[in-house]
Amino acid sequence: MSVILGIDPGSRLTGYGIIQQQGRHLHYVASGCIRVTGTVAAPLSLAEKLKRIHNSVVELITQFQPDQFAIEQVFMARNPDSALKLGQARGAAMVAAACHELPVAEYSARQIKQAVVGTGAADKAQVQHMVVALLKLSRTPQADAADALAVALCHAHSNENLIKMAGRRR
Amino acid sequence: MSVILGIDPGSRLTGYGIIQQQGRHLHYVASGCIRVTGTVAAPLSLAEKLKRIHNSVVELITQFQPDQFAIEQVFMARNPDSALKLGQARGAAMVAAACHELPVAEYSARQIKQAVVGTGAADKAQVQHMVVALLKLSRTPQADAADALAVALCHAHSNENLIKMAGRRR
Repeated sequence: MSVILGIDPGSRLTGYGIIQQQGRHLHYVASGCIRVTGTVAAPLSLAEKLKRIHNSVVELITQFQPDQFAIEQVFMARNPDSALKLGQARGAAMVAAACHELPVAEYSARQIKQAVVGTGAADKAQVQHMVVALLKLSRTPQADAADALAVALCHAHSNENLIKMAGRRR
Repeated sequence: MSVILGIDPGSRLTGYGIIQQQGRHLHYVASGCIRVTGTVAAPLSLAEKLKRIHNSVVELITQFQPDQFAIEQVFMARNPDSALKLGQARGAAMVAAACHELPVAEYSARQIKQAVVGTGAADKAQVQHMVVALLKLSRTPQADAADALAVALCHAHSNENLIKMAGRRR
């Protein structure tokens, strides 16, 4: 059995999704969002935001003891400014995983859509629909949490393919 | 007395510079580069690179016990791809400082040049020249280490101004 922590990083909201994989059987464990927006009265500095992302991921690792970590790969950021912010959030989350000796897997948006919906050209609503169906959820999770669950599902799918390939080689 | 750790982050090379400040007196402590390039035979994954940056900054904090941390602020990254890579390296370094409860200060390239050379339009060679002069170094440090020392000097300068301002208020 393996526990997969999927992360969808963002400069304001970082989604997380945790699933359990036992062969072809997938079970939902938890999902949610790490919010680092602060308030108008008490805005957060960049260092505080990154620390919050990092510490939240460390807490998830401590609580759910995942043995695998998957994160969305970014190929085409919209502009240099948002790419820098996204990179910082991504760095803070990945460092938490790498420092806990978790293997880090990266998947492109296309790979995630292909694995979850069956086509790399799927839209967000289709991805969310399939996340709900595959994990037998009673309601649609918040968008960033659904994206993080989709990353975890994509990783589980690639695990499953590896198991299949290993089986064929026997 | 305060010990300032300056960081010039980069996706391949992250420069660091440590100086001691005692009022207006500045002393060089250490400087160098964190290299995360790997080799052709053994390339490093992104997670390994970020872990190496993070752990190296943690080691510097443990060894030199800085009480202040300064890092170059990035305003205009060249393109989204390099901005993302730079952001990841920056995030890994800042998380190390923030998780050790170091106050994190950010300065733009212009502020650093202004503080060290006296003009925001100074070039790299002028910055290096002034770093050598201000810290009475016997030789020019490697470019990224010199940039990191310049960030630390800029922070010391702003500390000094704060002390002056506090003095005036008395």
